[in-house]
This record gives sequence, C-alpha cells and structure tokens, in this order.
Amino acid sequence: MIKSFVQYIEISEPQLGNNTADVERIKAVIKKITKQDAIFFPTTLANDLPQKLRQWNHKIKVVLFKNSLGWQIVDILKPDRDRAVFGVAIDLGTTRIVLRLINLESGVSCGELSFDNPQVAIASDVLARIHHARTKEGLIELKELVISEINNYIKKLSPKELVYLVAISGNSAMTHLFLGVDPTFLIREPYIPAINVPEPVAACEIGVDINARGVVYLFPNIGSYFGGDLISGILFCGLHKKDNPSIMVDVGTNAEVVVGYRDWLIACAGAAGPALEGGISDMGMAAKPGVIDRVKIDHLTGDVDVHTIEDKPAVGICGSGMIDLAAELFLSGMLDIRGQLVPEHCKDRYFEKDGVGYFCLVDNSSQKNLPNIELSQVEINSLTSSKAAMYSILQVIIEKIAGLKFDDLEKFYVAGTFGSFINPKSAISIGMLPDIPIDKFEVLGNSSLEGASKFLLNPDSFDEIEAIRQAITYIELNVNQEFMNIFSGAKFYPHTDASRFPSVKIK
Amino acid sequence: MIKSFVQYIEISEPQLGNNTADVERIKAVIKKITKQDAIFFPTTLANDLPQKLRQWNHKIKVVLFKNSLGWQIVDILKPDRDRAVFGVAIDLGTTRIVLRLINLESGVSCGELSFDNPQVAIASDVLARIHHARTKEGLIELKELVISEINNYIKKLSPKELVYLVAISGNSAMTHLFLGVDPTFLIREPYIPAINVPEPVAACEIGVDINARGVVYLFPNIGSYFGGDLISGILFCGLHKKDNPSIMVDVGTNAEVVVGYRDWLIACAGAAGPALEGGISDMGMAAKPGVIDRVKIDHLTGDVDVHTIEDKPAVGICGSGMIDLAAELFLSGMLDIRGQLVPEHCKDRYFEKDGVGYFCLVDNSSQKNLPNIELSQVEINSLTSSKAAMYSILQVIIEKIAGLKFDDLEKFYVAGTFGSFINPKSAISIGMLPDIPIDKFEVLGNSSLEGASKFLLNPDSFDEIEAIRQAITYIELNVNQEFMNIFSGAKFYPHTDASRFPSVKIK
Repeated sequence: MIKSFVQYIEISEPQLGNNTADVERIKAVIKKITKQDAIFFPTTLANDLPQKLRQWNHKIKVVLFKNSLGWQIVDILKPDRDRAVFGVAIDLGTTRIVLRLINLESGVSCGELSFDNPQVAIASDVLARIHHARTKEGLIELKELVISEINNYIKKLSPKELVYLVAISGNSAMTHLFLGVDPTFLIREPYIPAINVPEPVAACEIGVDINARGVVYLFPNIGSYFGGDLISGILFCGLHKKDNPSIMVDVGTNAEVVVGYRDWLIACAGAAGPALEGGISDMGMAAKPGVIDRVKIDHLTGDVDVHTIEDKPAVGICGSGMIDLAAELFLSGMLDIRGQLVPEHCKDRYFEKDGVGYFCLVDNSSQKNLPNIELSQVEINSLTSSKAAMYSILQVIIEKIAGLKFDDLEKFYVAGTFGSFINPKSAISIGMLPDIPIDKFEVLGNSSLEGASKFLLNPDSFDEIEAIRQAITYIELNVNQEFMNIFSGAKFYPHTDASRFPSVKIK
Repeated sequence: MIKSFVQYIEISEPQLGNNTADVERIKAVIKKITKQDAIFFPTTLANDLPQKLRQWNHKIKVVLFKNSLGWQIVDILKPDRDRAVFGVAIDLGTTRIVLRLINLESGVSCGELSFDNPQVAIASDVLARIHHARTKEGLIELKELVISEINNYIKKLSPKELVYLVAISGNSAMTHLFLGVDPTFLIREPYIPAINVPEPVAACEIGVDINARGVVYLFPNIGSYFGGDLISGILFCGLHKKDNPSIMVDVGTNAEVVVGYRDWLIACAGAAGPALEGGISDMGMAAKPGVIDRVKIDHLTGDVDVHTIEDKPAVGICGSGMIDLAAELFLSGMLDIRGQLVPEHCKDRYFEKDGVGYFCLVDNSSQKNLPNIELSQVEINSLTSSKAAMYSILQVIIEKIAGLKFDDLEKFYVAGTFGSFINPKSAISIGMLPDIPIDKFEVLGNSSLEGASKFLLNPDSFDEIEAIRQAITYIELNVNQEFMNIFSGAKFYPHTDASRFPSVKIK
C-alpha cells in the first residue's frame, strides 16, 4: 500500500514489440504500487501526456486518490517540481469552520485558519437551515455561502493551484448542505439521509476553487444524526483498533456516542425527545477572548476565581466554564443535589429577579460598559437537563445496549471542539460523565479536523473509514419510559444513586 | 446482466429501523440487477433526489453506463417520462463521419446522417493531420473541428437533451484527435499510442453537446495501426465467437486484418514500408454520384459497360470500380500477368501520353465540360502494388503466422465502407483476395457504425470489447525479406503461383 497520495514513479520506456500505450504503462506501475487492479485514468489527462512523458524521461509525480470503485489518477506532475502538492483538511462545523493546509508529501501542516460558518447568517441552528433548504434557491444559497467562504480561506492559505485534495468532515446536515443535497428528510421520520457515502467529487463540479483537477472528499455519514465528523473522530483516536472496549463521546452538538473496540462498534445518537433538544452545545457562549472558561470556588471561603480566555475582562461564560461553575457551586454547597441554588450558601452573590434566583459570578460594576456575569436558575436547570441527558445516554449505551460497566472502559475519548475545553473532573462532579479514573479520559481536541488531516496523509484511511462504517451498528436513541426513568435519576447532582460517583465528595 | 442501458427500477421505501440513505438504496437495486458490486453514484446526482424519489413513489428510470472499474449511474429520470432516451453511434472515419440515432430502450434506429470529416480542410490524409497536431493549437483545432460538426449533426437528429450516450468508433489517430490527445508518437518508432483504452468521458468535459449528464465512449485501440473501428467491426461480425477460424479484413485504409475465432485472435496491421504506403484507399475517388463503381467488359468483343452511382454521367472511378476494371481488363486479356496494359488487345482505347500508356474507360467528348475517364499505367501499377500488398498480408497472417490455409477459413468478412463496394469475384480475379468459395465472403457494410450501434444496445458489449482486446495478439507487420519475396509473387495477375487461383480463368 502507498504511504502518500503523491507518488514519484518511473515508467518503462516504449519499445518495438511492446505497443503498450503511455496511459496503460502508467496504469501498470500504479497497479503495482497500490497492489490493486482497479485504476481509473481520466481520459482528458492523456491530452499532453506523450510529450511530457518523454521530456521527463518517463519519470513522473502522480497525485492519486480513491473512490468506492478504486484508485483514480488526479494529476500527473513534473517529477522534480519545486512547488508543494497540498491538501486541505476541513472541519465543517455548524458554527465554526476550521481549515488546515497540509503538504501531502512531507506530511507537514503549513497553516490553519478558522472562521464562523457563514450559514449562521441564515440561521444559527441546523433545523432552521434545513428548513431554509426546502426550496432549491435556499439550498443553493446555503451551499454557496459556505463554499465561497471556504474558497476565500483556502486562497489565504495557499495559491489555489497547489491544492489538489480537500477532505471535509462534518455532520450529516452540514455534509448535505455543502454538497447541495436536499437535507429535508434528515429530520423527518424515518430520518433518512439522501446520501451516506458520497463519492469524491471533482472540485470544479461543486465550485470548490482549488487546482482544476482537484478532488473533494467528504467523510461518510452513518445516519441522520451520526455524521462524518464522528467517523473522522473514530479514525483519529483509533477506537476501532483498541484491544478493549472504549468510548468516544462528542459533547459538542447532540450527544453522539460510539462505544466499542476492534471487534465491534456501537454508535448511538438522537435528537429525539425534549430531554435532548438543544443539547449541551447551547450552554453559554462560544469560546472567544473574555469568555470565562474556567471557574474555581474556594469551598471554605466561597471565594470565586474565574479565568477568561486571553485574560480579557469577562464578557460571558462558555459551556466548559458552565460545567466548572456548576461543579464548584455543587461541591461548595451553593447548589443542592436537585440543582437548585442555595441562597444561604451563595450569600450576597444570590439575588432574585422576577421570582427567579440568580448567581452573580462576576461583578463588572467597576468596568464601564460591561454587564455583570450572572447565571439564572433557569440556565442552571438547562445545564442540569443536558448533563442528565448525557449521563443517561452513556448509561443506556454502556449498560443497557453494550452490557458493560463504566469500569470496563479502557479509554474515554472526549471529542468535538466543545469537549476539548471540558474539565473531566468537573463533569464527573456534576454527574455528567461517569466516575472513572481521570487518566482514562482523553480529550481529543478538534477530532474532526484531526481525522480529516490523518486521512489526507494516510491513503490506507480510505479503506479504514469504510471498515469503520461497516463495523458500526447504529442505534437511534428513542426516548422511552425506561430512558426517562434513568434520566430522572441523572438530573440529581451527581445522581440519585451516589454509589455511582464514589469520588465526588461534597463539602 | 441487464439488457439495456436504461432501466426502470423500484426502490424500497425508507422506514424506521433501516436508515439506509436514498442513494444507497438505489445502489442496492442496481447491484442486484447488474450482478456487480462496483456501482458509482455521482454525488451531484443526489442533489434533488430525495424529493423526486418520494414524488415518484420510489420508482425511477435509470440511465446506466460502465467504465473500467464498474457501473456508473448517468442520470435518474421520471419513471413514466414520455420522451425517448437516445444514444448516438458514430463511425468516426478519416474522410467521412456517420451518425446514427438509436432509441436506447426500444432499440430502434431513429435516423442516420453523414458528412465529410471537417478535418479534411486541414489535411485529407492522416499523417498530415498528425503533423498539424504537433502544436497544442493545431491539436485543439482538429479536435474542435470534428466535435463542433458532430454537435451540429446531433442537433439535426434529436433535441440534444434527449441524447445520453454517444459511442464512437474510429481508428487510433481519429480517436486521439477526437479526444484532443497528442497523436505524435502514433507514427514515430516504436509507434506508441498515448492511450489504448480511454475511459468514458463526460460529454461536457470534451465539448460534446448532448444532455448535460451525457457520456461519450470511444472504442479502445489495440495499437497505432489497429484502432477502435476494427474492434467495433469484430464486435459486429462476432469473429471472437466463431467456431472455426475466420478472418475480417478492412480494406478501407491500410490493410488491417484479424484472423481467429473463439479461442484466439491475431491482428495484423502496419503502414511500414513502401509496399503498403498510401494503401488501397488512395485508389480512385470517394463514392459519390457519377463515380464509376462497377465495370463489365465483354471478354469476346471488348465492349466496356460502366455503372455510375445514381446513373449520373461518369466523373471518375472509385476503388471498387478500379478493382472491377482491373479484373475485367485482365480477364479479357487487355492487362497481362505483369499488370501491364496490352495495347493490341486494348485497341483504340489505348493511347500514350509523355511515354505513359493509358486506357480510356469512358469517352466523354460528347458531354460538355466532362473530361474523359482515363486510367494510366502508373495508376494501374499503384493498384497492382496495393492488391499485392493485401494478398501478401493475408498470406503472411494466415499461412506464416496462424499456420492455416486459406481453405481453412469458415468466413471471410470484408469490413469498412470501402470494402462494402468491393465485388469479391473481381478481387479474386486480380489476386487481391484469396480464391475461396464466394459464399464464404460476407461484406459487412459500415461495420464500424454497426459495431457502435450494437454496443449501445447491449450493455454486455462493454465486457465483450474488453475480452476481444485481451484476446487479440497484435503483430505489427514488418517488411522483411520474406515479406518482399511473397510480395513479388503477388504483384503478378493473379499470382506467379497460378495454382493459388484455380477459379480464375483467363480468356
């Protein structure tokens, strides 16, 4: 198997007695190095090949790619060319899009840029975007918004003609919208994607502005609620190769969970039911300068210490900050086991407005134009639902579906950009993540981007992704009575069944 | 295996518990009907699929095609559409191009048009066109000339959006020029094509103006001098399925010969050496009204009876007329066994100009503005060389290479448009074709066009063509001393070895 999508090869010279055409001689070498018979040589690539081949003494550099039928030759380049052959890995997030430029030969990352998903201008949530895409015009508008902005950013990273491959990992809805494929039925029962395994597309065919012969690959979906970003995450952390059952959880959007190892994989996702709606990503603000991402409370004095991104004056709190805060409030007794603020312990940080309790996290009254950072009981209730939903899903998939115990897990991977800021200790304290040894947790960072990058540097990944896809048993989570019972217990801090959280010690 | 490139299929409806995407459900049905796993579904075809599929109650009409890796889905149509799905078969001749419109579902031919190859404006012979294509501009000029004229004629046959498939059969040079592929090395030692097996191309990619999703297929070449037109001819006459050795000869251009049957195929071609240069196609004019295509001479009286196309006043003579004439001249003693005019037998039809002998075939002096039709000894010598070359090639391939005798042949197929006018009896009389029973000869007509038509109506043909290509042993004819010895004997009428032509009785 080849180690890079860019290969230097030498072709046998033509001779009397062997009238094998130029194209077929090239194909023969590619067959040999890929150990595969299915090689697609696009006919138009032959146009100026004969002269080139002879000028270059039958040595060439080939850019290769794959589709579901076999290898395809993307371009044929000068063997000693002095310019790079680039790929761009893209994490196609609902709210944020991240691009990474990768030298396909050296493997070196040569730049990274991110920007807000411009589809937010139409609607910030996915459901509204899918509604917008009901009309052909709406669909094309959403597609073009995202592609034109990606084009702008690719240009900032590299001269476009040097970029040959783009690998994109996003959820099912984002994948459909990017391709301009009608996403309507993703969200209607029985929740059927239009396409699960998109073949790589010619960049020019969908308007991605890279090399004229460039190809765009999108990670496949498993189902409407289990997208390519998770496949990419599995590829990155290697869940499918573990020796013992492990779990990968994306706490970024809806709770999406994969549990398994080299023998089997079970994926569980769903936005069904009010318990899961909104999800954990709705908590707090997106990470940006001034946003509180870490909170400490002195359990004895009740002194609050907040950390803001880039140490700027506090402007709000993000999801991981919320989890930290809830954990600290709970551990210092300011939040009771039902998730209610305890006024007498919150002391002067507690106040009420219109009958709703509030906790004042940061008093900005000394700062001009900056409001206080306050947290209402309503927001805490929402966090409580979210953390309970997360734990319930984990409990269902691990205990009910996989028939394991949390302690059986070798690794607990936390995926997604949101997940990368979570302090697992805090998440355990509020009963959101199971109480297993901290060193089993591994925060993957932007696993979607990392998986896409890994893909661009490992041609084997193509088959690996298909193997992952085939190995996964996908279960759509139904909110039934049993789930609701589990959910009710999980709405307590950390849980009605305290024996599940032996390490959580309350003041 | 499917019987047509257009298939009506019914897809299972989506349901809870089976989240197979729309595209994947379609692929599953196609896998079943083609009995093949490799199915390529172009991603952009998914764009408006979900709505259509549901509007059409999960019934669709699919246009399918194939490439070397597997089946590809060309388009998805309304199941009860009231318009035809057409293919166009094209014989891409050096001098003449013929188009046939075919209803891919009913198999009915719905029209045929032909026109002169517009590349003739650049150069009438292939060598000069290949020289013209040395520069990129020249190559593109030649390509665009032929494609734009084909586009014009397709439009005359059908609304362009109804045409989904185009199958083109031409010689190696025409195939290269059509695709805009540099043909330079076809004619330089060691005579290597740029491409032998072109993958089907998107029509829009090379400028063929049919349905936006249409596909263009070109028959593969075997070598520089053995092109897709011959593969197409083999497909048409079924040489590769015969129970006993048979032969197919294209006497249209250079002598191209395939001998064999279901167990093996040997192809022999070559333009090497002065004996073969120019070839038989250079003799006389192209067939058009007024051109002499048949000649009769009363062996006793010497009276000459000519037939012209459409019975118009004689304006010239075509190749088949030349062969007829030479045969009649020889059989009536006006041409001796060395191929020299015999003045005393030609009587007043013989005259000399600048020391060269002439035979006056038609005296047009009574017709205004029409010159006499006269044949010089030089032209007869050229015919003699050509017929000797043809016979020598046949002798070499049948006797020396295949180790057979002419009498072993079950069938003698005469291919090519030129061949379709030949009177085999005359060709035997001059020693151009072997002296075997006349009923073994079968004139195929435009076998190139017929093969292309057969292809469009038989999806099996795709594999059959590849099997033919694989089965063929291709031998480039070298003009060596042995060949020259054989050639010398064949330059006599009918041959130095008269026992080879027992049926030829001279007056």
